[in-house]
Amino acid sequence: MSSASENLAWLPVVPALDPALASRLRWAVDSLAKPPGSLGRLENLAVRLGTIAGSIPPPRIERATLLIFAGDHGLCEEGVSAYPSTVTAAMVRTLLAGRASANALAAAVGAETTVIDIGIAADLPAHPGLVDAKVRRGTRNAARQPALTADEVEAALAAGVAAAGRAVDAGADAILLGEMGIGNTAASALLMHRLLPAPLADCIGPGAGHDPEGLARKRAALARAAARTAATEPLSVLAEFGGLEILGMAGAAIGAAARRRPVVVDGFIAGVAALAALRLRPGIGDALVFAHRSAETGHALLLAELGAEPLLDLGLRLGEGTGGLLALPLLRAASRLLTDVATLDEVLAGVA
Amino acid sequence: MSSASENLAWLPVVPALDPALASRLRWAVDSLAKPPGSLGRLENLAVRLGTIAGSIPPPRIERATLLIFAGDHGLCEEGVSAYPSTVTAAMVRTLLAGRASANALAAAVGAETTVIDIGIAADLPAHPGLVDAKVRRGTRNAARQPALTADEVEAALAAGVAAAGRAVDAGADAILLGEMGIGNTAASALLMHRLLPAPLADCIGPGAGHDPEGLARKRAALARAAARTAATEPLSVLAEFGGLEILGMAGAAIGAAARRRPVVVDGFIAGVAALAALRLRPGIGDALVFAHRSAETGHALLLAELGAEPLLDLGLRLGEGTGGLLALPLLRAASRLLTDVATLDEVLAGVA
Repeated sequence: MSSASENLAWLPVVPALDPALASRLRWAVDSLAKPPGSLGRLENLAVRLGTIAGSIPPPRIERATLLIFAGDHGLCEEGVSAYPSTVTAAMVRTLLAGRASANALAAAVGAETTVIDIGIAADLPAHPGLVDAKVRRGTRNAARQPALTADEVEAALAAGVAAAGRAVDAGADAILLGEMGIGNTAASALLMHRLLPAPLADCIGPGAGHDPEGLARKRAALARAAARTAATEPLSVLAEFGGLEILGMAGAAIGAAARRRPVVVDGFIAGVAALAALRLRPGIGDALVFAHRSAETGHALLLAELGAEPLLDLGLRLGEGTGGLLALPLLRAASRLLTDVATLDEVLAGVA
Repeated sequence: MSSASENLAWLPVVPALDPALASRLRWAVDSLAKPPGSLGRLENLAVRLGTIAGSIPPPRIERATLLIFAGDHGLCEEGVSAYPSTVTAAMVRTLLAGRASANALAAAVGAETTVIDIGIAADLPAHPGLVDAKVRRGTRNAARQPALTADEVEAALAAGVAAAGRAVDAGADAILLGEMGIGNTAASALLMHRLLPAPLADCIGPGAGHDPEGLARKRAALARAAARTAATEPLSVLAEFGGLEILGMAGAAIGAAARRRPVVVDGFIAGVAALAALRLRPGIGDALVFAHRSAETGHALLLAELGAEPLLDLGLRLGEGTGGLLALPLLRAASRLLTDVATLDEVLAGVA
């Protein structure tokens, strides 16, 4: 098998960060008119935003776009979800009607949303808020066969890179990752198991909700899928298990990081997409801002293994990018510290 | 000594909550098009906003006003702070110039700010962003004598009630409590010690910053202040220790709760003001939304004793209302759930 890097020469490379910049940013934050360190993690975030952008002060984060990638999973044939695959299309219609949770939160914080059909198992009518980037109508059933071909993996990654690029071209200062896809905690558990790696049992949770019988069915189906293949190489693992919306998010993370925009990672599924992106392009790590610690089993372990300290811990487990939307105001606030706040010297001199 | 309630007949009373409303709100949240409970603490916040307002759905939280009460402390004569009292006026000038941390964060989240001079030990020129409600130029030195007279306590509470009333009249959907006052972690430690109550040592921290010698000086001065009086009755404790900006916040909390607006409580000092307000008007408890867990010693204990679970935990210890500003978007998001999000029945029926 050829290596991942050979196949992915087209995938954007993330620019190297200036190692001296972080300490200059830290010095600038420490000179502000407040007790040193008194804005806690917001100060770290200000430093990080500067390193991502490669500038001091960091550019203001104002406009942000939530990219909601939607796709279905052949794994649902195995009963891995309490909901049927048709709910994916139904919830996408709700998103397009502006009446999903993500819409409410986007309105509350002032973010734009775009829905990308990267693999819904239904044909939706054209809609100004919907991007048609369908790779195929849902993945194949990973418990029985590879979910995707190598070409389909590349197409989904490319769709994600393109979506991030369009959002940045349209003025987004930050990119938020979101998803809608019945069955995607199942695919995410398989990816985390093989890409982190971690014991499969530690990666499986109730997702959108399961009774004990349903959770046992999910565990058994994922064990069959894992037993079917020994793949560990990132592109192969992604082909074996899917899903398309996870690959879309991974591509968007790489595309946004290559454009020096912070990537706000929602919960468990977006976190697994970030893991996949890290395995393909390790240089994106600094661009990732983990929004929150999800209540979904596996997420705490994933965050710990990635050394990620999420900003929020609110017991969320919804997806759609909802956690990222709630974290966005923290990025906006952090981005203003070095432009808006006087230095202590200015205050003591009476000029601010 | 006459009782507090006799003296405070003029202080607004918080309307009783409808006990049936919370369960109706919970039912409505559970019927939304998402897995039940999947928005975690945001769902609890939506229920709480409805109970505070006495309406289902809750009104949208859009406009919010941060009230920054500024005052000085005679205790600073004892060296309880690493900074001189003159820094209070300097930082108020910075706030009025729009260049303090609170200004940056208010701009980031879209909140209005008002600074109330309730006791700065200097005369500031008139400014459109400054309310002159000065009760006196700083408190007396509580290590040697009562910080305030009973009349001054009432005047400061009344100034807080009035400030909240003006903000609500001007359209504020939520009131945020903030403060600026060198020495106010010292006064707060004394108030927490006597009003919670808690051992004095557990209430004292480094505040804006202290070397070990400075912290020892602070501890000794506060021990002298505590030894000077055995007061435990709330109004007496407030007179013994001050401070004016803490009383202003307590009054604003009561005034806002009486107008059925949520009160967003910043960190340690605002938390002690909320404690004082609770001791004067226990009915305000449901209106208080604790924004964050401060890094200042004593705050974790205060929150635990009040049964408060703050929304954020970011290592902040700045004050000015900065933590409340960062929590505001969570209130805005929660307030939209019951108006913006479709029900599961609507989605399944294909009408949303």
